[in-house]
Amino acid sequence: MTFASDNWAGAAPEILDAIAKANDGAVPAYGGDELTKRVEARFAQVFERECAVYFVATGGAANGLALSVLSPPYGMIFCHEESHVQMDECAGPEFLTGGAKLIPVPGEGGKLTVDGFTKALKGFPYRPPHGSPPSVLSLTQATECGTLYSAGELKALCDAAHNADLTVHMDGARFANAVASSGASPADMTWRAGVDILCFGGTKNGCLAAEAVVFFDPSMAKDFDFRRKRAGHLWSKMRFISAQFDAYLANDLWLRLAARANAMGKRLSDGLAAIDGVEISYPTEINEVFACFPGDAAEKLRAAGEPFYPWITPGDPAEGRMNRLIASFRTTEEEVDGFIDRVSAAVKSPA
Amino acid sequence: MTFASDNWAGAAPEILDAIAKANDGAVPAYGGDELTKRVEARFAQVFERECAVYFVATGGAANGLALSVLSPPYGMIFCHEESHVQMDECAGPEFLTGGAKLIPVPGEGGKLTVDGFTKALKGFPYRPPHGSPPSVLSLTQATECGTLYSAGELKALCDAAHNADLTVHMDGARFANAVASSGASPADMTWRAGVDILCFGGTKNGCLAAEAVVFFDPSMAKDFDFRRKRAGHLWSKMRFISAQFDAYLANDLWLRLAARANAMGKRLSDGLAAIDGVEISYPTEINEVFACFPGDAAEKLRAAGEPFYPWITPGDPAEGRMNRLIASFRTTEEEVDGFIDRVSAAVKSPA
Amino acid sequence: MTFASDNWAGAAPEILDAIAKANDGAVPAYGGDELTKRVEARFAQVFERECAVYFVATGGAANGLALSVLSPPYGMIFCHEESHVQMDECAGPEFLTGGAKLIPVPGEGGKLTVDGFTKALKGFPYRPPHGSPPSVLSLTQATECGTLYSAGELKALCDAAHNADLTVHMDGARFANAVASSGASPADMTWRAGVDILCFGGTKNGCLAAEAVVFFDPSMAKDFDFRRKRAGHLWSKMRFISAQFDAYLANDLWLRLAARANAMGKRLSDGLAAIDGVEISYPTEINEVFACFPGDAAEKLRAAGEPFYPWITPGDPAEGRMNRLIASFRTTEEEVDGFIDRVSAAVKSPA
Amino acid sequence: MTFASDNWAGAAPEILDAIAKANDGAVPAYGGDELTKRVEARFAQVFERECAVYFVATGGAANGLALSVLSPPYGMIFCHEESHVQMDECAGPEFLTGGAKLIPVPGEGGKLTVDGFTKALKGFPYRPPHGSPPSVLSLTQATECGTLYSAGELKALCDAAHNADLTVHMDGARFANAVASSGASPADMTWRAGVDILCFGGTKNGCLAAEAVVFFDPSMAKDFDFRRKRAGHLWSKMRFISAQFDAYLANDLWLRLAARANAMGKRLSDGLAAIDGVEISYPTEINEVFACFPGDAAEKLRAAGEPFYPWITPGDPAEGRMNRLIASFRTTEEEVDGFIDRVSAAVKSPA
Repeated sequence: MTFASDNWAGAAPEILDAIAKANDGAVPAYGGDELTKRVEARFAQVFERECAVYFVATGGAANGLALSVLSPPYGMIFCHEESHVQMDECAGPEFLTGGAKLIPVPGEGGKLTVDGFTKALKGFPYRPPHGSPPSVLSLTQATECGTLYSAGELKALCDAAHNADLTVHMDGARFANAVASSGASPADMTWRAGVDILCFGGTKNGCLAAEAVVFFDPSMAKDFDFRRKRAGHLWSKMRFISAQFDAYLANDLWLRLAARANAMGKRLSDGLAAIDGVEISYPTEINEVFACFPGDAAEKLRAAGEPFYPWITPGDPAEGRMNRLIASFRTTEEEVDGFIDRVSAAVKSPA
Repeated sequence: MTFASDNWAGAAPEILDAIAKANDGAVPAYGGDELTKRVEARFAQVFERECAVYFVATGGAANGLALSVLSPPYGMIFCHEESHVQMDECAGPEFLTGGAKLIPVPGEGGKLTVDGFTKALKGFPYRPPHGSPPSVLSLTQATECGTLYSAGELKALCDAAHNADLTVHMDGARFANAVASSGASPADMTWRAGVDILCFGGTKNGCLAAEAVVFFDPSMAKDFDFRRKRAGHLWSKMRFISAQFDAYLANDLWLRLAARANAMGKRLSDGLAAIDGVEISYPTEINEVFACFPGDAAEKLRAAGEPFYPWITPGDPAEGRMNRLIASFRTTEEEVDGFIDRVSAAVKSPA
Repeated sequence: MTFASDNWAGAAPEILDAIAKANDGAVPAYGGDELTKRVEARFAQVFERECAVYFVATGGAANGLALSVLSPPYGMIFCHEESHVQMDECAGPEFLTGGAKLIPVPGEGGKLTVDGFTKALKGFPYRPPHGSPPSVLSLTQATECGTLYSAGELKALCDAAHNADLTVHMDGARFANAVASSGASPADMTWRAGVDILCFGGTKNGCLAAEAVVFFDPSMAKDFDFRRKRAGHLWSKMRFISAQFDAYLANDLWLRLAARANAMGKRLSDGLAAIDGVEISYPTEINEVFACFPGDAAEKLRAAGEPFYPWITPGDPAEGRMNRLIASFRTTEEEVDGFIDRVSAAVKSPA
Repeated sequence: MTFASDNWAGAAPEILDAIAKANDGAVPAYGGDELTKRVEARFAQVFERECAVYFVATGGAANGLALSVLSPPYGMIFCHEESHVQMDECAGPEFLTGGAKLIPVPGEGGKLTVDGFTKALKGFPYRPPHGSPPSVLSLTQATECGTLYSAGELKALCDAAHNADLTVHMDGARFANAVASSGASPADMTWRAGVDILCFGGTKNGCLAAEAVVFFDPSMAKDFDFRRKRAGHLWSKMRFISAQFDAYLANDLWLRLAARANAMGKRLSDGLAAIDGVEISYPTEINEVFACFPGDAAEKLRAAGEPFYPWITPGDPAEGRMNRLIASFRTTEEEVDGFIDRVSAAVKSPA
């Protein structure tokens, strides 16, 4: 087992069982089946509100397609400078929106602040048609740095966005981890705070390939169906994504899996922090740990076959020294402790 | 069980087993795992030639992304006027290529002919930069009308395309059915005939969601990786597509599933043809049957809950009277015979 | 002087004078100047109706940008198979709309008929989200074959389009020639017939570079300003397009120039028709003449330095033998007669 | 006369004369005429090197189309955070490249530095296919802040870009002002420093609408012709852009016009600097002056009808207090002195 990423883990057994169970019989394709309709409707309960829900297989698809509904093709999307939409989707949002402009905004620990966002906005006064019109604020919960926005912080950011006539997108690839960690309700973390569309992730947290685009105002979804289709993101055998969400939402599986990953993240963070010379870069609030190792410990560990990634970003406060470690729903205490021991040994061994 | 479409069927048990089996352990994401590499390499055996292989989840993604590599964004793609890329992907090829132009070409029974293609080409003499440059010929094997190109017909079409400096894309959503039915080798049906890229389908033939883009000249794949990623089509847990292809290609499962579906298609076609007044519109060469029912039989059957689709296309020779019926790898003889009986009854009952 | 195209002619002296006159003083850029506002408003008089007007420099820009407002990026645009948007803009409409699909429809003499359009539409029943939704009917007046729609024919086509929930775009690159020839009012030929957006051409008829996108329902223009800007089509020194239209519309200059070109077209057509063996392919209704020359007369003429183009299109009824000849506002009777003589000589001379 | 922008000025008389002179006779359209070929060739002399040259009418078109050749549609373009491509083209580069990502980089006075650029690059280590690949460095000469890069500074930046496998685009909307001010040769300021494509502006400096895209490596221009056409930027009556450049380059008109505008900028800057409380924000190196006025002087001046723009940008060091003033080739000493007097009065008058 490794700490390279939570998507190195496979799927939870409950998810695979649900897929197998959904395999019986002939059912309408492309989401016309009963299971899909039932599971889509289930989101209303989770979020305490009627919503329009669309399934896709990847987070990049979910984010880009959601943004294509919120932004005109010439619009401007404000996002954290380390966000996934900005850094990790190979200009996917630019492509899927038909050419919108992303404006990277700095902020400590992967988090945007009202001040930071407001300052960024000020640099783009409305100047039609020369300036691309500010259209969307994209937030990530939990953030790429493994930190969390409180419901209050989200509300303040969404208010600032709406006051400037922007809509709000939330990249929730690790939304489950955020909810499990904070204890805030899914509703408080999204539409009650002002989020317009949530990309609700399943894949990183035990699904095989399952992401839901959740519109809290169903009227906004107007042409999403066409956009999903033309981008090649409508599954013919949709039941197999629906089945994943069916199991994922049942009996709080999503929260249980995330809680497990979070706990392992915390254990890992605490263990590493106790090693002399190791610095934990960001508060460990979910299953991600960002750490700087002293001397050449990181190189030694990698040479010995530990696959974890350096974390280098535009605003990199650690000048290339940071490492990202991620626990998953599958991670065991033994694995965590073993890794801590190996880090400890690498730190102590002579160069 | 229904004859609405082969994608109303679920997945073959071997496919689900392979997914479950692939679930063990932590492995690199995004296709960096051993299984993916091994399965990609397997295609070289199937096609008797080194090739570059990329997996995606839908046929629309495979086709559009493949075309984006073959055509410049201002290029022209010739395809059958009833082809999936033209009719059923919601302008996906136009989107994924960045704006290429599709030229629909008529041809009986879903098939292009050298004459038809050449005549279409003649209408677009090279006039840079006014005319979009003819760039790609897109063929579908088996066709949307359930008919087959022989290896010789393919070669003649590919030669005509290459002679005019076009490359050749093959939409092989039902490629397995074509190979199983014709007995021609995968190589003869593709690169030996001159096909440059094959979109090799798994989903309609018993996979859950698995399509392979196969480049017979690996150098053509140059930037496919970027294109797949930015369109949101790179799976993080790639092993779960790879596992499907692993099982699909093992022990000729793909051909066995297709042969079963084809046989059921043939049985259905023969049974329907024997009913007075039923006309079979196209030769039944794979698992698809196109039939016109006399009087109001189609309406009666639909009213009684048989879900099958009318088949209306630009060149519709039957003026809206044709119906499309598709058998799948799961279809049983009893289902076929039962359906034939119900059609027979509907035809005979007074209006 | 040649008959290669009306855009081989330069600009009318009145147009150049207007540009020179508009050069005085500093005025707001990007269309904020008084002249631009005044000239935009002038269109309301010409068309007997308030309209929103935007200037650009090329017909390709006007057409593509107009279509981008009428069609969603995944929409379907029906047009004549020989239309400029389909044949001569290098996939510009696909690009400027963000990926819409053009459906070429045949029709004699460059004209669509209600029957032809209705038949084409029938091939694309509404099947969301698989089929791209039929969105726009694009008409060309005068047509690419130099023929005209009557106001009644336009109304019937627009009604058919609106009844099917499509909007109507008119490519009016030679709109002036159509109005001058038919005597119908600009209003009758556009919004009274049901046209939603007219691309009103100036360039081919004596302007330097001036095209107006005219929205008969100003609310449709909502974001045109942004679309024009991001495509690089907003002139900073807009006064220099406005000045062209100022002169073009004054004292019916546009109609006088077009009438002159039309008369020369007619004289050319009549003269050619009188030569043994010359066939006039389409009725000569404006300044364009389409003619087949017997034997190798066309080759001889070209070899002798007469620059005119062969006219080869998808539905080419003449199998490559047709030639397109265009008179301009500058063409003189002597030029016409001289050309007729040279054709006559070429036809008569031994091979 | 105003200082709102140099594009509020009209065209130089020599330019209009050249247009009028080019109006004689029928010549091939779309750039096939002799004048166009001759003027394109003239650039080889100006730049002391064979180059491929393409004309368009706007700076936005020139920049976006040039970038579409240098960057793949999923590429990353580094530019100054105040540059025109980032701030003033309504997401045109994103659109015209088919979705490339722009990375805004800060730098004092509108200038990028090797350090600043290198630091920005470091934030995006090559991570295919997740990270968009760094593809282009876009420089502006003169900058949006009216400052200049020396030939040495340009060379250092180009070297840094090429060493990282990026190509270099130069937005030269005010290239003439830069050359006239610095005395460096056009070659030293471009290809000898390492610039791959220059967008050579004419419009702001006395042309009507004329920009040239200059490829110093003609092989890079491969498909520019198609890209220009499909974006609607190929003029049919191309001679009218060519004629502008013919006059612009003759007898150093371009440099004389720019020198005049620069001198007026300098006079304005010096005069304003002498007023108590007025701060000149950036060195005045061309025809642009950036100034902060004390108290409410700016408001008073605007209320009195002086049309000049506030200059607010992402990195705005003056917190919204800066004003941009631009002299043109037409500006007179009297106009400058009059304006200085009015500013002086506004500063001194009681609030």
